[in-house]
Amino acid sequence: MTELAAILDAIRFDPAGLVPAIAQQHDTGEVLMMAWMTRATVEETLATGRVCYFSRSRGRPWRKGETSGQVQHLRELRIDCDGDTLLLLVDQTGAACHTGQRSCFFRAVRDGALVEIAAPIADPEALYGHGGRVMEGG
Amino acid sequence: MTELAAILDAIRFDPAGLVPAIAQQHDTGEVLMMAWMTRATVEETLATGRVCYFSRSRGRPWRKGETSGQVQHLRELRIDCDGDTLLLLVDQTGAACHTGQRSCFFRAVRDGALVEIAAPIADPEALYGHGGRVMEGG
Repeated sequence: MTELAAILDAIRFDPAGLVPAIAQQHDTGEVLMMAWMTRATVEETLATGRVCYFSRSRGRPWRKGETSGQVQHLRELRIDCDGDTLLLLVDQTGAACHTGQRSCFFRAVRDGALVEIAAPIADPEALYGHGGRVMEGG
Repeated sequence: MTELAAILDAIRFDPAGLVPAIAQQHDTGEVLMMAWMTRATVEETLATGRVCYFSRSRGRPWRKGETSGQVQHLRELRIDCDGDTLLLLVDQTGAACHTGQRSCFFRAVRDGALVEIAAPIADPEALYGHGGRVMEGG
Protein backbone atom coordinates (compact mmCIF):
# COMPACT_ATOMS: atom_id res chain seq x y z
CA MET A 1 0.00 0.00 0.00
CA THR A 2 1.29 3.46 -0.83
CA GLU A 3 1.60 6.07 1.91
CA LEU A 4 -1.22 8.05 0.30
CA ALA A 5 -3.49 5.01 0.33
CA ALA A 6 -2.61 4.41 3.98
CA ILE A 7 -3.61 7.99 4.84
CA LEU A 8 -6.89 7.74 2.96
CA ASP A 9 -7.64 4.36 4.50
CA ALA A 10 -7.18 5.84 7.98
CA ILE A 11 -10.18 8.09 7.35
CA ARG A 12 -13.61 6.70 8.20
CA PHE A 13 -16.03 8.24 5.75
CA ASP A 14 -19.73 8.11 6.68
CA PRO A 15 -22.25 6.06 4.68
CA ALA A 16 -22.61 9.00 2.27
CA GLY A 17 -18.84 8.99 1.70
CA LEU A 18 -18.28 12.20 3.66
CA VAL A 19 -16.08 13.24 6.56
CA PRO A 20 -16.34 16.53 8.47
CA ALA A 21 -13.29 18.79 8.18
CA ILE A 22 -12.55 21.65 10.58
CA ALA A 23 -10.46 24.47 9.15
CA GLN A 24 -8.21 26.29 11.62
CA GLN A 25 -5.91 29.21 10.81
CA HIS A 26 -2.48 27.66 11.36
CA ASP A 27 -0.82 30.55 13.18
CA THR A 28 -3.58 32.25 15.17
CA GLY A 29 -5.51 29.11 16.08
CA GLU A 30 -8.79 30.67 14.97
CA VAL A 31 -11.40 28.08 13.99
CA LEU A 32 -12.66 29.34 10.64
CA MET A 33 -15.31 26.92 9.44
CA MET A 34 -16.43 23.31 9.20
CA ALA A 35 -17.31 21.62 5.93
CA TRP A 36 -17.29 18.16 4.38
CA MET A 37 -14.84 16.21 2.26
CA THR A 38 -14.89 13.03 0.22
CA ARG A 39 -12.02 10.65 -0.39
CA ALA A 40 -11.46 12.34 -3.76
CA THR A 41 -11.41 15.87 -2.32
CA VAL A 42 -9.03 14.84 0.47
CA GLU A 43 -6.76 13.40 -2.22
CA GLU A 44 -7.00 16.56 -4.33
CA THR A 45 -6.31 18.74 -1.28
CA LEU A 46 -3.20 16.78 -0.40
CA ALA A 47 -2.02 16.81 -4.02
CA THR A 48 -2.58 20.51 -4.72
CA GLY A 49 -2.14 22.11 -1.29
CA ARG A 50 -5.38 24.03 -1.90
CA VAL A 51 -8.35 22.97 0.20
CA CYS A 52 -11.15 21.33 -1.75
CA TYR A 53 -14.36 20.41 0.11
CA PHE A 54 -17.44 18.62 -1.18
CA SER A 55 -20.60 20.70 -1.38
CA ARG A 56 -23.49 18.60 -0.10
CA SER A 57 -26.04 21.07 -1.45
CA ARG A 58 -24.55 21.16 -4.93
CA GLY A 59 -23.34 17.56 -4.97
CA ARG A 60 -19.91 18.34 -6.32
CA PRO A 61 -16.38 19.32 -5.29
CA TRP A 62 -16.10 22.84 -3.92
CA ARG A 63 -12.69 24.37 -4.35
CA LYS A 64 -12.67 26.88 -1.53
CA GLY A 65 -12.28 30.35 -2.99
CA GLU A 66 -13.01 29.37 -6.58
CA THR A 67 -15.67 32.10 -6.79
CA SER A 68 -14.60 34.48 -4.05
CA GLY A 69 -10.82 34.27 -4.25
CA GLN A 70 -10.81 33.56 -0.51
CA VAL A 71 -8.68 30.44 -0.84
CA GLN A 72 -7.30 28.13 1.82
CA HIS A 73 -3.75 26.87 1.52
CA LEU A 74 -3.20 23.66 3.43
CA ARG A 75 -0.42 23.69 6.01
CA GLU A 76 -1.19 20.36 7.64
CA LEU A 77 -3.91 17.72 7.65
CA ARG A 78 -4.65 15.94 10.92
CA ILE A 79 -6.92 12.97 11.59
CA ASP A 80 -8.65 12.32 14.89
CA CYS A 81 -8.35 9.24 17.07
CA ASP A 82 -11.09 7.25 15.40
CA GLY A 83 -10.57 8.67 11.93
CA ASP A 84 -14.00 10.22 11.50
CA THR A 85 -13.05 13.91 11.68
CA LEU A 86 -10.30 15.93 9.99
CA LEU A 87 -8.54 19.04 11.22
CA LEU A 88 -7.07 21.20 8.47
CA LEU A 89 -4.43 23.73 9.48
CA VAL A 90 -4.72 26.33 6.76
CA ASP A 91 -3.59 29.74 5.67
CA GLN A 92 -6.85 31.51 4.88
CA THR A 93 -6.89 34.39 2.42
CA GLY A 94 -9.37 37.02 3.62
CA ALA A 95 -12.79 35.84 4.72
CA ALA A 96 -13.54 32.16 5.26
CA CYS A 97 -17.28 32.85 5.56
CA HIS A 98 -19.67 33.62 2.73
CA THR A 99 -21.01 36.50 4.84
CA GLY A 100 -17.65 38.27 4.58
CA GLN A 101 -16.73 37.36 8.13
CA ARG A 102 -13.25 36.06 8.79
CA SER A 103 -14.73 33.01 10.62
CA CYS A 104 -18.12 31.39 10.26
CA PHE A 105 -18.35 31.30 14.07
CA PHE A 106 -19.18 34.98 14.57
CA ARG A 107 -22.24 34.44 16.78
CA ALA A 108 -21.87 33.62 20.46
CA VAL A 109 -24.07 33.16 23.47
CA ARG A 110 -23.21 35.94 25.89
CA ASP A 111 -25.27 36.89 28.93
CA GLY A 112 -27.84 34.37 27.82
CA ALA A 113 -28.42 35.82 24.36
CA LEU A 114 -27.07 35.13 20.87
CA VAL A 115 -24.98 38.09 19.71
CA GLU A 116 -22.60 38.88 16.85
CA ILE A 117 -19.06 39.15 18.19
CA ALA A 118 -17.22 40.26 15.04
CA ALA A 119 -17.75 42.51 12.05
CA PRO A 120 -17.37 41.41 8.43
CA ILE A 121 -13.95 42.00 6.90
CA ALA A 122 -15.20 41.89 3.30
CA ASP A 123 -18.31 42.78 1.35
CA PRO A 124 -20.11 39.58 0.28
CA GLU A 125 -21.44 41.43 -2.78
CA ALA A 126 -17.88 42.10 -3.91
CA LEU A 127 -16.83 38.49 -3.24
CA TYR A 128 -19.77 36.69 -4.80
CA GLY A 129 -21.97 39.20 -6.65
CA HIS A 130 -25.60 38.28 -7.15
CA GLY A 131 -26.84 40.26 -4.17
CA GLY A 132 -24.19 38.77 -1.97
CA ARG A 133 -25.96 35.45 -1.74
CA VAL A 134 -23.62 32.56 -1.41
CA MET A 135 -22.23 31.27 -4.68
CA GLU A 136 -20.20 28.57 -3.07
CA GLY A 137 -20.65 26.58 0.06
CA GLY A 138 -21.73 23.61 2.07
CA MET B 1 -39.90 33.49 22.75
CA THR B 2 -37.35 33.25 25.53
CA GLU B 3 -33.70 33.99 24.81
CA LEU B 4 -32.88 30.32 25.38
CA ALA B 5 -35.50 29.24 22.84
CA ALA B 6 -34.09 31.78 20.37
CA ILE B 7 -30.61 30.30 20.80
CA LEU B 8 -31.83 26.74 20.34
CA ASP B 9 -33.93 27.74 17.35
CA ALA B 10 -30.84 29.24 15.67
CA ILE B 11 -29.29 25.77 15.57
CA ARG B 12 -30.10 23.62 12.56
CA PHE B 13 -30.09 20.03 13.76
CA ASP B 14 -29.77 17.34 11.09
CA PRO B 15 -32.59 14.86 10.34
CA ALA B 16 -31.32 12.67 13.20
CA GLY B 17 -31.60 15.64 15.58
CA LEU B 18 -27.82 16.07 15.83
CA VAL B 19 -25.40 18.94 15.32
CA PRO B 20 -21.59 18.63 15.23
CA ALA B 21 -19.78 20.48 18.01
CA ILE B 22 -16.09 21.35 17.92
CA ALA B 23 -14.38 21.71 21.30
CA GLN B 24 -11.52 24.20 21.46
CA GLN B 25 -9.44 24.99 24.53
CA HIS B 26 -10.41 28.58 25.25
CA ASP B 27 -6.99 30.00 26.04
CA THR B 28 -4.53 28.04 23.91
CA GLY B 29 -6.75 27.68 20.83
CA GLU B 30 -6.04 23.95 20.62
CA VAL B 31 -8.80 22.02 18.85
CA LEU B 32 -9.49 19.13 21.21
CA MET B 33 -12.23 17.02 19.62
CA MET B 34 -15.44 16.98 17.64
CA ALA B 35 -18.59 15.25 18.81
CA TRP B 36 -22.35 15.57 18.44
CA MET B 37 -25.08 17.26 20.42
CA THR B 38 -28.87 17.22 20.48
CA ARG B 39 -31.18 20.08 21.41
CA ALA B 40 -31.48 18.60 24.89
CA THR B 41 -27.73 18.27 25.42
CA VAL B 42 -27.13 21.83 24.16
CA GLU B 43 -29.71 22.99 26.67
CA GLU B 44 -28.13 20.95 29.47
CA THR B 45 -24.67 22.26 28.57
CA LEU B 46 -25.85 25.88 28.70
CA ALA B 47 -27.69 25.27 31.96
CA THR B 48 -24.91 23.44 33.81
CA GLY B 49 -21.76 24.86 32.23
CA ARG B 50 -20.49 21.28 31.84
CA VAL B 51 -20.32 19.99 28.28
CA CYS B 52 -22.77 17.20 27.52
CA TYR B 53 -22.63 15.55 24.09
CA PHE B 54 -24.86 12.86 22.65
CA SER B 55 -23.23 9.49 22.04
CA ARG B 56 -24.38 8.18 18.68
CA SER B 57 -23.01 4.72 19.42
CA ARG B 58 -24.74 4.42 22.78
CA GLY B 59 -27.82 6.45 21.86
CA ARG B 60 -27.81 8.57 25.00
CA PRO B 61 -26.39 11.76 26.50
CA TRP B 62 -22.68 11.60 27.19
CA ARG B 63 -21.55 13.89 29.97
CA LYS B 64 -17.94 14.44 29.02
CA GLY B 65 -15.72 13.17 31.79
CA GLU B 66 -18.45 11.25 33.63
CA THR B 67 -16.27 8.12 33.58
CA SER B 68 -12.79 9.55 33.17
CA GLY B 69 -13.01 12.76 35.20
CA GLN B 70 -11.69 14.59 32.15
CA VAL B 71 -14.48 17.15 32.14
CA GLN B 72 -15.05 20.15 29.91
CA HIS B 73 -16.25 23.40 31.44
CA LEU B 74 -17.97 25.60 28.90
CA ARG B 75 -16.56 29.09 28.50
CA GLU B 76 -18.56 30.11 25.42
CA LEU B 77 -20.85 28.54 22.85
CA ARG B 78 -20.67 29.84 19.28
CA ILE B 79 -22.89 29.05 16.31
CA ASP B 80 -21.74 29.20 12.71
CA CYS B 81 -23.24 31.29 9.92
CA ASP B 82 -25.84 28.77 8.85
CA GLY B 83 -26.42 27.28 12.27
CA ASP B 84 -25.37 23.74 11.48
CA THR B 85 -22.12 23.59 13.46
CA LEU B 86 -21.23 24.62 17.01
CA LEU B 87 -17.91 25.79 18.41
CA LEU B 88 -17.48 25.22 22.12
CA LEU B 89 -14.78 27.20 23.87
CA VAL B 90 -13.98 25.04 26.86
CA ASP B 91 -11.63 24.55 29.74
CA GLN B 92 -10.57 20.92 29.39
CA THR B 93 -9.39 19.00 32.42
CA GLY B 94 -6.57 16.68 31.41
CA ALA B 95 -7.03 14.58 28.30
CA ALA B 96 -9.90 15.21 25.89
CA CYS B 97 -9.20 11.97 24.03
CA HIS B 98 -10.05 8.47 25.20
CA THR B 99 -6.51 7.43 24.22
CA GLY B 100 -5.11 9.69 26.94
CA GLN B 101 -4.02 12.29 24.42
CA ARG B 102 -4.75 15.91 25.20
CA SER B 103 -6.39 16.31 21.75
CA CYS B 104 -8.03 13.72 19.52
CA PHE B 105 -6.11 15.21 16.58
CA PHE B 106 -2.72 13.71 17.40
CA ARG B 107 -2.05 12.20 13.96
CA ALA B 108 -0.84 14.38 11.09
CA VAL B 109 0.33 13.94 7.54
CA ARG B 110 3.97 14.96 7.44
CA ASP B 111 6.33 14.27 4.58
CA GLY B 112 3.56 12.30 2.94
CA ALA B 113 2.99 9.87 5.80
CA LEU B 114 0.62 9.69 8.75
CA VAL B 115 2.53 10.13 11.99
CA GLU B 116 1.75 10.68 15.67
CA ILE B 117 2.74 14.21 16.67
CA ALA B 118 2.06 14.08 20.40
CA ALA B 119 2.42 11.68 23.31
CA PRO B 120 -0.42 10.73 25.66
CA ILE B 121 -0.66 12.81 28.83
CA ALA B 122 -2.65 10.20 30.74
CA ASP B 123 -2.95 6.43 30.94
CA PRO B 124 -6.25 5.31 29.40
CA GLU B 125 -6.29 2.33 31.74
CA ALA B 126 -6.26 4.68 34.69
CA LEU B 127 -8.97 6.86 33.17
CA TYR B 128 -11.35 4.17 31.99
CA GLY B 129 -10.19 0.80 33.29
CA HIS B 130 -11.25 -2.28 31.33
CA GLY B 131 -8.02 -2.52 29.38
CA GLY B 132 -8.13 1.11 28.50
CA ARG B 133 -10.89 0.64 25.97
CA VAL B 134 -13.16 3.59 25.70
CA MET B 135 -15.95 3.68 28.26
CA GLU B 136 -17.39 6.90 26.96
CA GLY B 137 -17.47 8.45 23.57
CA GLY B 138 -18.99 9.28 20.26
